[in-house]
Amino acid sequence: MPPFATTRRVEFGDTDMAGIMHFANFFRFMEVAETDFLHALGLSVSRRAEGWGFPRVSAACDYRRPARFEDVLTVAVAVERVGAKSVSYRFDFTNQRGEEVAVGRVTTVFCRDAGPGRIESAEIPADIRAKLGG
Amino acid sequence: MPPFATTRRVEFGDTDMAGIMHFANFFRFMEVAETDFLHALGLSVSRRAEGWGFPRVSAACDYRRPARFEDVLTVAVAVERVGAKSVSYRFDFTNQRGEEVAVGRVTTVFCRDAGPGRIESAEIPADIRAKLGG
Amino acid sequence: MPPFATTRRVEFGDTDMAGIMHFANFFRFMEVAETDFLHALGLSVSRRAEGWGFPRVSAACDYRRPARFEDVLTVAVAVERVGAKSVSYRFDFTNQRGEEVAVGRVTTVFCRDAGPGRIESAEIPADIRAKLGG
Amino acid sequence: MPPFATTRRVEFGDTDMAGIMHFANFFRFMEVAETDFLHALGLSVSRRAEGWGFPRVSAACDYRRPARFEDVLTVAVAVERVGAKSVSYRFDFTNQRGEEVAVGRVTTVFCRDAGPGRIESAEIPADIRAKLGG
Repeated sequence: MPPFATTRRVEFGDTDMAGIMHFANFFRFMEVAETDFLHALGLSVSRRAEGWGFPRVSAACDYRRPARFEDVLTVAVAVERVGAKSVSYRFDFTNQRGEEVAVGRVTTVFCRDAGPGRIESAEIPADIRAKLGG
Repeated sequence: MPPFATTRRVEFGDTDMAGIMHFANFFRFMEVAETDFLHALGLSVSRRAEGWGFPRVSAACDYRRPARFEDVLTVAVAVERVGAKSVSYRFDFTNQRGEEVAVGRVTTVFCRDAGPGRIESAEIPADIRAKLGG
Repeated sequence: MPPFATTRRVEFGDTDMAGIMHFANFFRFMEVAETDFLHALGLSVSRRAEGWGFPRVSAACDYRRPARFEDVLTVAVAVERVGAKSVSYRFDFTNQRGEEVAVGRVTTVFCRDAGPGRIESAEIPADIRAKLGG
Repeated sequence: MPPFATTRRVEFGDTDMAGIMHFANFFRFMEVAETDFLHALGLSVSRRAEGWGFPRVSAACDYRRPARFEDVLTVAVAVERVGAKSVSYRFDFTNQRGEEVAVGRVTTVFCRDAGPGRIESAEIPADIRAKLGG
């Protein structure tokens, strides 16, 4: 699979009183990058109409350098592992000066709707798996 | 109806790089105060199981004084108007020194589920109206 | 001043359990549109290094139609008024089908740093005023 | 050190279109729990006036069970390690039925102001270290 990267600017509302992007917002940036990545493959993080989605089972981030208001972050997305039911991503954040800002990891599990307000994990369909490089 | 007020602390993540609570977060505080208010009446902003909710049709806030990290804001909730289908609230924010911080207004409309992903406005049921003082 | 518009996609994390963009996030979208608008004029919502910014004194939004995950909203920005110290904006939100989604209004006040953690309102400098069409 | 726990309700605005608390908001809940914990010790996550704070260098969360609107989560806070300059926390989330919801970990580094907009890591002062049980 070719490397994939997307960009997103740090907005005023993404910062906190320390003058830098709030640490929880890196996870929102990862989600946006994952959405962009899946779109590029013709997929989505959620196809409610089709009754499936990719909820997260774990998420982590190591912070190397602050991100500031109006920084434009490049988020490189890599699929680290495709399991029977799960997909693990790595996200490398760099700023507009090419400096490493953060490294994130998220594991999602393929789930199908199983009645009102209920979902259950399921094997990733072959066509989705193929697109993810699994 | 007796006056109602609730409190909520300004968290680190509620602030922005100006060192004060981000302006959009006042609307989140209004929503929490509305939830507290409705709970006190034995109601909720959303009863998904019963197929109804109170989505917003307008929201506004006037900012008088900054709210800072670790400030404990008192949010007084008043029902300004109960219409056939709508409820309008006023929220008065004061800080722990009794200073006026902000005044917000939100109008919500009673809606019922009308098929998958669809809702439609409806008359507020008499029991809910009575609790709201309408 | 020529009309200005920017676009922003509704992300998964922008939605709430009603399946639509949370009402407070429209204010974050307004802030992003304001930043884009000011950038297009060679300005910013905050020039910390130069000791000035544009904090908000009021914000309002009328919601006409839900915005959903993966909708791409166009936000048209118009300067409604430039006062001695304040700027009032109007934001018109439309979706990718050209439907009106929301109308927002924000008034900001030009402020200068006035010591540690303090700011005070000031007259908008002539060069900034000229760019804003005031 | 005696065990410490705090509670926080899942608000409407904390949820996403999957009907559950958005995964990034668990990190905001961890921050609130850390603030409560430090307050209980007579400390804070940030003492801007005294020129120090505890920015994060890593954060992680394992999600075991969804948290839903109006759930009241108990967040137990444990200091897992106090290093020369860092503090590592573990956060155990349970819901009002006593079910495990998530487990989070955050490592923060003690930093002092080092000029405008700059901070640098430093050894944790003895009095703060003693309170943290290090």
